[in-house]
Amino acid sequence: MKYKFANRIERVKPSAIRELLRLGGDPAIISFGGGYPDPEIFPIEKLRKVYDQVLQEEGKLALQYTGTEGLMSLREKLVSRVKTIGISCSVDNLFIIQGGQQGLDLTAKAFIDRGDIIITENPTFLGALAAFNPYEPEYVGVSMDENGMRMDELEAALQKHPNAKLIYTVPEFQNPTGVTMSLERRKALVSLANKYNVVIVEDSPYREIRYEGKDLPAIKSFDTEGRVIHIGSFSKILSPGLRLGWLIANRDLAEKLSLLKMASDTQNSTLNMYAVNRFMDMYDLDEHIAHIRETYKQKKEVMFQTLRDTFPNSITYTNPQGGLFTWLTFPQHIDTKILMQEHSLPIAKVAYVPGESFFPNKQEKNHCRINYSYMSEEKIIKGITNLGEIVKDVC
Amino acid sequence: MKYKFANRIERVKPSAIRELLRLGGDPAIISFGGGYPDPEIFPIEKLRKVYDQVLQEEGKLALQYTGTEGLMSLREKLVSRVKTIGISCSVDNLFIIQGGQQGLDLTAKAFIDRGDIIITENPTFLGALAAFNPYEPEYVGVSMDENGMRMDELEAALQKHPNAKLIYTVPEFQNPTGVTMSLERRKALVSLANKYNVVIVEDSPYREIRYEGKDLPAIKSFDTEGRVIHIGSFSKILSPGLRLGWLIANRDLAEKLSLLKMASDTQNSTLNMYAVNRFMDMYDLDEHIAHIRETYKQKKEVMFQTLRDTFPNSITYTNPQGGLFTWLTFPQHIDTKILMQEHSLPIAKVAYVPGESFFPNKQEKNHCRINYSYMSEEKIIKGITNLGEIVKDVC
Repeated sequence: MKYKFANRIERVKPSAIRELLRLGGDPAIISFGGGYPDPEIFPIEKLRKVYDQVLQEEGKLALQYTGTEGLMSLREKLVSRVKTIGISCSVDNLFIIQGGQQGLDLTAKAFIDRGDIIITENPTFLGALAAFNPYEPEYVGVSMDENGMRMDELEAALQKHPNAKLIYTVPEFQNPTGVTMSLERRKALVSLANKYNVVIVEDSPYREIRYEGKDLPAIKSFDTEGRVIHIGSFSKILSPGLRLGWLIANRDLAEKLSLLKMASDTQNSTLNMYAVNRFMDMYDLDEHIAHIRETYKQKKEVMFQTLRDTFPNSITYTNPQGGLFTWLTFPQHIDTKILMQEHSLPIAKVAYVPGESFFPNKQEKNHCRINYSYMSEEKIIKGITNLGEIVKDVC
Repeated sequence: MKYKFANRIERVKPSAIRELLRLGGDPAIISFGGGYPDPEIFPIEKLRKVYDQVLQEEGKLALQYTGTEGLMSLREKLVSRVKTIGISCSVDNLFIIQGGQQGLDLTAKAFIDRGDIIITENPTFLGALAAFNPYEPEYVGVSMDENGMRMDELEAALQKHPNAKLIYTVPEFQNPTGVTMSLERRKALVSLANKYNVVIVEDSPYREIRYEGKDLPAIKSFDTEGRVIHIGSFSKILSPGLRLGWLIANRDLAEKLSLLKMASDTQNSTLNMYAVNRFMDMYDLDEHIAHIRETYKQKKEVMFQTLRDTFPNSITYTNPQGGLFTWLTFPQHIDTKILMQEHSLPIAKVAYVPGESFFPNKQEKNHCRINYSYMSEEKIIKGITNLGEIVKDVC
């Protein structure tokens, strides 16, 4: 039959890049494509103990339904945890979500009618575009420099689009560029949002994975008008396979968003919420995060040393202070998708994410995103060296 | 600040009933309100072994990201399992969802533009209305009798609304009425859907909890044109706290729906999928379900005996062959919401769900839904007896 889909389905397409990355599933391929954590750092033995105890002691509760907002003691822990980044809130402002991605879906669902404007960094997280697209927004991309989203361009965008609904940012170690928004820009962003009456979506899944420089206060910490939605996640600091994150918003807004969550999937896994709550009781999450930071710092150094050793100077890359990614810029004439299809995958046996899908509007073809958290140091050296050989020939 | 919400937010409201049920959270209250499984039947010790083994042997995979469609071996098991209800499909047709509720959200997201028609049973599952509402549909309710949705009324509705997008049904032990759609009606439903080119959503979370009568083939088993979306769930047969269900659809449609899932929440909990997969390897799920059936059959009998003993004849109730609920009809002048607020909660200390929110359009006030799976037999007897006292006075 021919399905009578909703209009929004025009905006829902499998990306060519997804197909390309599927080819990268071949175990012979060294993949810098995904945003996977290093599985070696998962606290498996600790989680074994945790699940065992939760099931033994609280099994009847942990396997049952619970409220949409999630386990109260976990929410209380998070309320206390975010104080360290300047966010003062109560459990009425915070609820548990199915990873950060769900926060993006719920936010767009609450705010976006067809044709509404979302302002994003340019480039921006492609998963956010995927979450927003079914609500049929239009995008305005704002350029970045080494201090994050440019405020002059943002103000121009707000003047041109006074009805813009959302400003979306990944302020730390941005996906895909690795860039962090400076303290001044964070304050300026909130001022502009106040002036033009727009909601900010602060997507912070990487913020605790910092291995250089100083922690910055959350954008939400400068929010005096309830216009910042802050999204955090356990995916990078504990495990993405548990699908747990949190969303913080003004009380009225949090209530609307949690009603939308109830409509979407009722609640998160009760068992996983009990387990993470108990993990935080039994173990020191910050100690675990310190271990992740060391591991990724080392991997980043290995990758950057190899990049310096093997890549031609015509290719530049960002130098992130944390997170999982660097962003490579090739000479203008290079199309990284074709490079991957014709050279990198078949010859170098290396996968990355071609940069074009990170651009909401005008797609630039001469970038790519490279992940350094997932592969072993040995594979990082081998993969980057192989890729260096290839690009020396074509650049 | 005043938020510039999307139009759809007008359709997203906390229900008065939710607030009322929150009062029912008081441990002194005997609650027949929720649709909770009996926690005594959760296979806690088996799941302890399962999580322990999964984490020990496959921890690195089980804590990592995986594909949106979910764990392949679990999908394979489900493909094989649904053969017994007449559904012939492959893993390309089936993916894992965050409980049945997510299947409803994804389906409405794929099909419903503002003002589109969804045909439902009248009354229907209120969680489905909650899932559909944000996509701004209009509803047409079709009456039921003891064989389920009435096909004459359905055809009249389709003639009147030739552009209807979806027909939504809970064919077994319907929520809220407990009624099962007969074999003849299932076939007639597919014929009518073919004739009027509309998609059927078959929501089957209760189908395996049958304790009387004969299993019927799924509506999907009569689908020759790819127009039935079949939704199943582990919530009632294993645990709702794991948030796992499955959706089966024509291949093209399944691909669209799984892209929408990727946009909404990336994927389900990898760990929980590994655990359920291993549970099915290590233990006999059907044996466990047989135990659930016995338990609920017994509870239902206790409740019905008490209803017969203590309720006046002016109150009638459906006699479900399975599932978790019966549907009570009071004399016309009784408003069950007021009854609950003024008598049942404060005096009888009993909660149920007033029937009005189950009606998509014209709300009938003289019904209520009563659950018999969650409370102990002792509390069932006490609660129904107390309620009987109250209603004798008012009816």
